[in-house]
Amino acid sequence: MRLETYGELAVRVALNLQAGQRLMIIGPLVNGGVSLEAAPLVRAVAASAYRAGAELVEALWGDEPLLVSRFQSSRPEFLTGVSRWLPNALVDHVSGGGAVLSIYANDPDLLAGQPVDVVGGLQQAVSRAVIPFRQQISRNDTNWAVIAAVGEAWAAKVFPDAPPAERGERLWRTIERLCRLDRPDPMGAWQEHLDALTARSEELNARRFSALRFRSASTDFTVGLPAGHTWVSGRSTSRNGIAFVANLPTEEVFTIADRARVEGTVRATKPLSYAGTMIEDFTLTFKEGRVVHLTAKRGEGVLRQLVDTDPGAGRLGEVALVPQGSPIAQSGLLFYNTLFDENAASHVALGTAYKFTLQGGETMDDDAFERAGGNKSAIHVDFMIGSGEVDVDGITAAGASHPVMRAGAWV
Amino acid sequence: MRLETYGELAVRVALNLQAGQRLMIIGPLVNGGVSLEAAPLVRAVAASAYRAGAELVEALWGDEPLLVSRFQSSRPEFLTGVSRWLPNALVDHVSGGGAVLSIYANDPDLLAGQPVDVVGGLQQAVSRAVIPFRQQISRNDTNWAVIAAVGEAWAAKVFPDAPPAERGERLWRTIERLCRLDRPDPMGAWQEHLDALTARSEELNARRFSALRFRSASTDFTVGLPAGHTWVSGRSTSRNGIAFVANLPTEEVFTIADRARVEGTVRATKPLSYAGTMIEDFTLTFKEGRVVHLTAKRGEGVLRQLVDTDPGAGRLGEVALVPQGSPIAQSGLLFYNTLFDENAASHVALGTAYKFTLQGGETMDDDAFERAGGNKSAIHVDFMIGSGEVDVDGITAAGASHPVMRAGAWV
Repeated sequence: MRLETYGELAVRVALNLQAGQRLMIIGPLVNGGVSLEAAPLVRAVAASAYRAGAELVEALWGDEPLLVSRFQSSRPEFLTGVSRWLPNALVDHVSGGGAVLSIYANDPDLLAGQPVDVVGGLQQAVSRAVIPFRQQISRNDTNWAVIAAVGEAWAAKVFPDAPPAERGERLWRTIERLCRLDRPDPMGAWQEHLDALTARSEELNARRFSALRFRSASTDFTVGLPAGHTWVSGRSTSRNGIAFVANLPTEEVFTIADRARVEGTVRATKPLSYAGTMIEDFTLTFKEGRVVHLTAKRGEGVLRQLVDTDPGAGRLGEVALVPQGSPIAQSGLLFYNTLFDENAASHVALGTAYKFTLQGGETMDDDAFERAGGNKSAIHVDFMIGSGEVDVDGITAAGASHPVMRAGAWV
Repeated sequence: MRLETYGELAVRVALNLQAGQRLMIIGPLVNGGVSLEAAPLVRAVAASAYRAGAELVEALWGDEPLLVSRFQSSRPEFLTGVSRWLPNALVDHVSGGGAVLSIYANDPDLLAGQPVDVVGGLQQAVSRAVIPFRQQISRNDTNWAVIAAVGEAWAAKVFPDAPPAERGERLWRTIERLCRLDRPDPMGAWQEHLDALTARSEELNARRFSALRFRSASTDFTVGLPAGHTWVSGRSTSRNGIAFVANLPTEEVFTIADRARVEGTVRATKPLSYAGTMIEDFTLTFKEGRVVHLTAKRGEGVLRQLVDTDPGAGRLGEVALVPQGSPIAQSGLLFYNTLFDENAASHVALGTAYKFTLQGGETMDDDAFERAGGNKSAIHVDFMIGSGEVDVDGITAAGASHPVMRAGAWV
């Protein structure tokens, strides 16, 4: 693995870390932070950040076995306890102008086998505790990004048939390729790719659709787009004026979904890992924007907990388009990790909407944002609805239908 | 290594963790927390804590390579930056009644070769930031303890002549023996040993000496003991009423030194690791309680920084007696780690005094404590002054001299 290049890419392309900025490296917050397994990458990022002039680089670490140990040995009544210091640390850091890098290296099935209501209860408690931080991120108060590192359990999930000793290396090589680290000039390759995504989002913005309709054999599903919705791609700008790229890799263009105008039934095209549990082969049926029915072959209880987290958790905040020609889709791999899987297929997100996906949204208060169609929730969870079998049409305010994707490819 | 037994010992004998208590596991604060290398022990402690009814176990991790990376690549002007969240997290945790376990597994020479003033400057900044937490610990506001775990660099320092692949295992076996984990009933062995230390401290309390005089070929050094000083050994009781043992292993009996009555020159009998730097073969000369002269063969700059941290850093807060017959002294090993080395030899501590070592001290405000002889500082750093060549006499208020130790053994 070209760890040094990956660190440079995270710091210079993704975060665009500024001289004098602090950087905090985190991970899944239900675990407390970044996996110890990611230490080599964390160190590479830190070295790169200091070279870029970072004032201070800190890591909040989270050890997956500690969480498992808690589930195995804690008294049940203590299983939703969370502490204040972690949410406070995050909010203080962002309020002080610090950048945030989240590194995912985690076992997608960590808590499989634990009681569903308990897992969901803890995840809800953590989600509620970090609402102010999530709001800062959703407003792009600072430059932030999400990248991935190989973890042993994760690699085993992606390459179950590879010899155990080779799985980690194979996943590293895959990340390398999907993050364009194997290109002669990875930084240049990213600028070129980001330019192409920007062009695509500008085209969609020019169309001003009122809704998108997704259709396949098992899906007929319409997602309203509020007036003033803005298609966004890889590049973002923080409120303090720093251009950054929130996800590496990124292949999507996305915008806000109208919280009140989602209708029909959608079948997920990939499993979803949530709260350390796999949710597989599931459907959601929406009426007037709200989930009114759901089914899942596996993890239905956790899915139900998820949409019941709060009133906004059963509504959509985001819709994103990804062509089947994307390198991640082409890899044919299932990553059980949203950062990759969401870039392999069109998707929607349950929960909170990003204010920057609505014109003027970032300066709206929550009520005004909601009236404009923006959803609010403690959660933001993507799940995949695109595939080579799905067609997408753009519906204008006048009701005219225009083909956007056919069989998963841009028209 | 009997990790499970060690975890049980830490939780049940050292911390005496109460059902419903939270536990925070930390490490050297200049690193940010417990070394990633200590993960197997951290996990064993957490499992044991949950079995004992802990409400929540959290670990603040610190990665030594991140600190080294900072020294290598940070701009010099940023090298004393510290963040507020860590000190705040510690204080909040203790204020909420949580227990604290510090696990040391660290490279005693981590920052050797870095500029002395920079290392000292960062250590000072961290020490100042955590003053409120240190005060909580010094008041025994909660049950707290310090234990050790093997780190590769530390093991290499203790067993430099062993084959590299065997060093870690040898250090684990040594810790096992010194922590009595190899006894048939480790918990019982600890209770018996703690009873013996209690008896020794009660004897010394009955004598009510006014000072201790240390003498050897290179030392003639008198440490005043305030009226009302209390000899303390392994067992402590927190202000919220929990009996605990602050150090495992522990072989010492200790009390408060009079901040104004320390006279003469003392030669350290073991090197001191401070701020990742070894300070070796050093002497300190005191007048009216204050260091007025110092020499060191190695690390003199860091030692000077240390005593200059604040006005109390050049005065003593503690004096402790350890016989040469203690298992740690008998091991003949130099650990470069205060937890072990301080239990191999009589020692004194520069910096803050523990209020619980003075009768009524815990309810005194800082001024009253200082008037009674108690020292106050952001630091508390032990260094060793005992050996098989050192005699110790107790001096009464009337000036009579009574032998306490001869050639390092109790009289």
